[in-house]
This record gives sequence, structure tokens and C-alpha cells, in this order.
Amino acid sequence: MSVPHPYWLRDNCPCADCRDPRGGQKLFRIGDLPDGLTAVETAEDAAGLTVRWSDGHRSHYPAGWDAPAGPDERTEHAKRLWQAADFARGLPEADWAAYLADPEERTAVLAAVLRSGFALLRGVPAEERRVLRVARSFGYVRETNYGELFDVRVEPDPANLAFTSAAIAPHTDNPYRDPVPTLQLLHCLRNDCAGGDSGLVDGFRAAALLREQDPAAFAVLARTPVPFRYRDRGTELTAERPLIGLDPRGAIREVRFNDRSTRTAALSALDPAELDAFYAAYRRFAAIVLRPELRLDFRLAPGDCLVLDNTRLLHARTAFEPGDGTGGHRHLQGCYADLDSLSSTLAVLRRGTAVLDELEALFEGEGSGEYLGEAVTLAAHMLQAAALARAAGARPPWWPPPCCTTSATSGAAGGS
Amino acid sequence: MSVPHPYWLRDNCPCADCRDPRGGQKLFRIGDLPDGLTAVETAEDAAGLTVRWSDGHRSHYPAGWDAPAGPDERTEHAKRLWQAADFARGLPEADWAAYLADPEERTAVLAAVLRSGFALLRGVPAEERRVLRVARSFGYVRETNYGELFDVRVEPDPANLAFTSAAIAPHTDNPYRDPVPTLQLLHCLRNDCAGGDSGLVDGFRAAALLREQDPAAFAVLARTPVPFRYRDRGTELTAERPLIGLDPRGAIREVRFNDRSTRTAALSALDPAELDAFYAAYRRFAAIVLRPELRLDFRLAPGDCLVLDNTRLLHARTAFEPGDGTGGHRHLQGCYADLDSLSSTLAVLRRGTAVLDELEALFEGEGSGEYLGEAVTLAAHMLQAAALARAAGARPPWWPPPCCTTSATSGAAGGS
Repeated sequence: MSVPHPYWLRDNCPCADCRDPRGGQKLFRIGDLPDGLTAVETAEDAAGLTVRWSDGHRSHYPAGWDAPAGPDERTEHAKRLWQAADFARGLPEADWAAYLADPEERTAVLAAVLRSGFALLRGVPAEERRVLRVARSFGYVRETNYGELFDVRVEPDPANLAFTSAAIAPHTDNPYRDPVPTLQLLHCLRNDCAGGDSGLVDGFRAAALLREQDPAAFAVLARTPVPFRYRDRGTELTAERPLIGLDPRGAIREVRFNDRSTRTAALSALDPAELDAFYAAYRRFAAIVLRPELRLDFRLAPGDCLVLDNTRLLHARTAFEPGDGTGGHRHLQGCYADLDSLSSTLAVLRRGTAVLDELEALFEGEGSGEYLGEAVTLAAHMLQAAALARAAGARPPWWPPPCCTTSATSGAAGGS
Repeated sequence: MSVPHPYWLRDNCPCADCRDPRGGQKLFRIGDLPDGLTAVETAEDAAGLTVRWSDGHRSHYPAGWDAPAGPDERTEHAKRLWQAADFARGLPEADWAAYLADPEERTAVLAAVLRSGFALLRGVPAEERRVLRVARSFGYVRETNYGELFDVRVEPDPANLAFTSAAIAPHTDNPYRDPVPTLQLLHCLRNDCAGGDSGLVDGFRAAALLREQDPAAFAVLARTPVPFRYRDRGTELTAERPLIGLDPRGAIREVRFNDRSTRTAALSALDPAELDAFYAAYRRFAAIVLRPELRLDFRLAPGDCLVLDNTRLLHARTAFEPGDGTGGHRHLQGCYADLDSLSSTLAVLRRGTAVLDELEALFEGEGSGEYLGEAVTLAAHMLQAAALARAAGARPPWWPPPCCTTSATSGAAGGS
């Protein structure tokens, strides 16, 4: 008797000896399985598949155990690629107080960061270090040589173009870091200068356009590691990564674009024809990135906090009139964090919804036929009660998640 | 008049209008250069190359400006791949006090982490939270859902095999995280059980062996993203990454290997033949990872702190007799950090040495012929003086680096 893919099937045995029933950790090593493993007996019915293995183990697989997952959520296939006009009816945004109070608002904001690459929180108190609180509402601050947070404002002797009043072209941050911070937060404390507007470009969209219009150029950028560097008195960071990073199947997974931090002298090692092909592709991609229709422009007001995917979105600003004692000022505080924790927080939030969905499905199926017979069913009663309870402020037992508790009790930055 | 690769050359103009002389930030965008850029005049001599460009700009490139960089330091090409016997004469290790006091010790330790994938610090006080101090001596702690640090010891109701007394096979940590923590620290506070020894395997070496012995299997692992997952009450982390990660040119750049956290049910989306090929390759790789000659075994004693590259090395432990009130105990504290900051700290440390090397080269060349004529030259005098000063405790002006200062003043965990 045979089953297809015996090692895959055996690897996924869900019994309590093979997987920890709580966390799902697998309790054996792939090499523990004998060579020549086969099924000696199988039975399949509506409840699933039962297999007795040649090593004596018995497995039961409930129907649907092997439902294919969605696409890797970090690649273009799980994203909504956009251009500026797609946000004509408004940006993905929420009020900070509502975000803190309402799991649905919170779910919507975090989902927008994953899908569109950004979201805007309004009404975050325009106070120093609040940006850390925002980061800790869904994850963990990634400390760097710039500190836990950094100030974006005009400095007298700037080491970085960011700390002047000059325009900054669309770019991703910290390309010289590996692992690059996957999320950036920018919290506006003051912005009463003339100018100093913000811009965002969907780097995945720009890369997809390049692939459509010049597949050879796209391939050159995906296969050429580019050296990036940042250097100051106490720091010397280097990373070598392509401008367009692909997953092993060729899907766009990361864009790293920052003219200021390239250290392309080291590309001298490239084959001469490849070097010219790289520059032609680089210039072509740079031109797409600057297309006006791709750039979403808006203005950050005090209390606005932008959360953006730094592996995908490029951010920019227009020049502004710097404060001179009589005029206005522009001051943002920023920090870095990571997508994996944001995604985890979102998945835990959705468990609450998933329970309601499951209940609804249950009562819409056999249950409703068996037990219910009125215009407003018992199921509808239950779901309405749940919705009313939520509206009245009831929270699922798992709310708030641990990372949120920590930030709420510590009130400000700092470890324990 | 033409020069080869005009855009590459122009992109690397080192003048103060094109690059910030301090940090090296490039001050123009690649798209600012005109189409059809050419050189209208060039002159080359021993001092370098001078070019007048068709856009009017003038560039001077000092000789050697385009020296090719070494290999990407994160790939196999920059590593010393090893097996256990290579450390027959001892592990890369240093005394914690010497490491703190002496930049050369520090350089050696950090270089070993990059080259061999690990180093051992001895004599780190066996006190709680000291592991954070070690991480902050070269970089920044990566906080996760496990906290700033985690305790590895027997727990009454363990959610993870790590918190039992069972043996743990070689694995990388947190494969379900993306970005994965690139460094792990393990600080031994107590280890007086029978058993509980540590093991390390060079994952790059294992991957290189697979490539040598079964190139097709290697290719399958490099092209198949594997879903990993960790789930508990407040956390649901997922990542999809191949077991062997390559750079765009095919060099080994990351190994992610952890039987416990795979969620391979989702591989149902693979082509059937590919699914079987994946399992055959996975089992073959797993068998190589378990080869005794690859595994370096040693025992952590209280005060030992292991620093290891979690993108490359697999770590393991043997089973032990858990403490029962009468017997011994085993207690490690661990934390995560990242390679980029470690590498930056090393590069800054090496600037000190580089200055001495430059001086030495200068006086061994023309200088020595022109000014010196005695058995012990002026150059030798200077270098001896520098060596004596260093031995007497003198420090270069950039010592200690900022990250070290912070940890020294704050004394323990926590932000500013």
C-alpha cells in the first residue's frame, strides 16, 4: 500500500507524540525517520486520512490539514501595489485613541502596513519619545547607532542630508545595514515651515513596472549585489545587497534604493559589459521611481505618525524654509522596528475575529438547521450580542497582547 | 574622447560637491546625470585620473580609487569553513577583562565571530543580565517576544523543548522570524548537572558538503522557501525562507535549520516531484548536519559567554540530569543581537591598527630612504613607542566606541 510523498505526510503527523499540542513544535528530527518509509495501511473518510506506517507509527490527518497557505506575505504576491491616484479617497489612517481602544481599528492599521506598505496614525500626542510608544504598540524598537530614536530636524553641522532643509529624493533607510530595519516610524512634532511635505513611492510597484518595461534591466538589478556604506566617527556599516531582492522563485521581496549611500567604486570587479548594463538599469529604475504618478504627496501635521515598510516603500520630502528664530520649524522623531512582530500582533488580533467567524460558520451550517427555526436565529442572537459587547468595550481574553501591556505600564521608552 | 563606463566613473567622483567629505554620502541622484554623458578631456598620471565631463563637471580620481573590495563578508567566501578537528588546539576565546581592556583582544574576538562564526568569552561574571552587557560591548540587543533576554533552564510546564532537560539537535534559532536575529549570545550562569554539554556545527560547511556531494539536492534546498512558525498565547510568528539562502551570485549566505519549527503542511502547493525532491534533499542535509566530525563539542562553565552567528552556525546540547533539589542545575541566559553592528565595531577598531600600518608603510618606503640611515630607524622608534604606549594602556582617541560607552555608563539593561 502506498501514499504519495510519505516523508512529507509523516513529517506532518499532528499527534501529540509528534507535535506539541500547544505551540505546534515538532518533537522529532527529520533524520529520525527510517529510510524507505512506507504506509502499510490507510483509510480515508470524511473525517480525514488515517495511516499506519512501516515504522509502526499511526497518524491521523483531519480533512483539510494540507490546505495550501497563501503567498509569502513579504512578497509582491501578498501586496496591493499602488500609485498615488489609488489613494484619491484618502490614506489608510486611524486616530491614535481609537487604535489603542479598538482591536478592529488596530487590525485595520496593521493590515494596511502589510498590504499597502504604510499607515498613518493621527492624534499621537506631539511629545518627545512618543514614537517609541507607537512602535511598542505592535512590536519592538530596533536600536541602532542612531540610538533608540532619532530626530529629523535642521542641525548646525549635519553629518547627513536628512538633518538639513534640503529636499530628499525617494529612498529606503539604512541600506548599509543587514538586517535592514524592516519598519520605519516617523512622528511629526512640529511642521510649520513653508515646504517640508512628505512623499511615498511603492518600490514594489516601481520594480514591477521596470520588469514589465525592461525585463533585462530588472534581471540585472536583481542579480547585482550593490555595496552600501555609512561611516562616521564611531560607525562603519557596510552591506552588499541588490537594489531589487527576489525570493527563490523570482517574486519581488525587497527594494533597497538610496543614491546617497552607495559605494559603487567596488563594482570595478564586475565584467565591463555587466557594469554598463547595471548603470543603464539603475538609471532606468531611478527614472521610474521619480515618476510623478507614482509619488503620493501629503503633509505631516503635529501628532501624525507614519508607519512604513522600509523593505518596500521609498520615502521623500520636499525642501523647506528652515526656522531662523522668526520663522517656522520642522521636527520629526523617528525610530525603527520590524515587520515580523507587527505581523505577529496582527495574527493574534485576528484570532479573535476568527473565533467569531468559526461560530458563524458553525451555526450557518448543520447547527442552524438542527436547532433553529425562527426569523432571527440563535446564531444571529449570539453574534449580535457579541457585536454589542464589543461596541460596549468588552475585550477578548487575550487582549491586550503582551507587547502592548508592557508599553502601557512603562508609559515611555526604556527596557525593564 | 572616451572613458569606459562613464556613468560608473561619474557616479564615483570624489569631489566635495559630489560626496560629503566626512561621511562619504553621495550628494546627487543617479538620475541627475544627463543622458549621453561622455568625457571631453582626460589626463592620467601617477597621481590618478582627471576627467572633464560633457556636463562641465571636472573629476579627479586618485590612483587606486577603484580597488575591488573583498568578498561580501556575509557569504561563504569571507569565512573560514570548519569542522571540529580544526579547533584541536583550542577555541577562539578571550578573557572578558582582557577583552574590555585591550582593543587587540576585542578585535580578535569580533573577527573570530565573523570568520569562524563564534567566539567564547571566559570570566564574564556569572550574574543575571550580564549577557546584555556583553551584547552592548559590540552592538545592540534585539528585543523579541521572549524579552530582552531569555532564560534557558528546566521549567515546570515548558512551551519549548529548550526549557526541558532533553537533548536538542543542532539548529538555528528563531527561523520563524524575518529578519532573523543574526547573532545569539548564551551566557552560562550555572552548569553542574551531569550532561548538558554544548555543540556547534558550521552550517556553511554542511551546506558546502551537500553542494559537493549532491549539487541537485543543494539546488532544491536553495530554491524552496520553507514555512516556519512559532505560536503561543500572545505570539504568532511566521517566515518563509529556504534552508540554504544564496546571494544573487549563488554563494552561501544563510543557513536556516530547525526541525522543530517547520510548518511544512503548506508545501502541498509544490509540484509533486518537487515535494519528493525537497524531502530527499532535506533528509540528506540533515544527515550531513549530524556527522560527528562536523560537531564541535565543549562544555560551558559558569562565566562563559558564547557569541555565535545565527545565520550560519547551528547549536545543540546534550541531555542532562535535571536538578531535583539534591542534584545539579543548568542555567544559561541568552539574548539576540545583530552582525551588522558587530562588524561596524570591528571596522572602527581596525581604523586604529590601519593608521599604524600606514605609518609603517610610509616609513618603509621613500621616507626611510630619505631621512633615515641608522640600524634602528626613526620609523622603528616611532612604532616601538606606539607599541609601548599601547602596552601601557594608552587608547586611540576613538576608544571606547559609543555603544560601549553607553553600556558602561548605564551598567545594565534599559534605554536612555
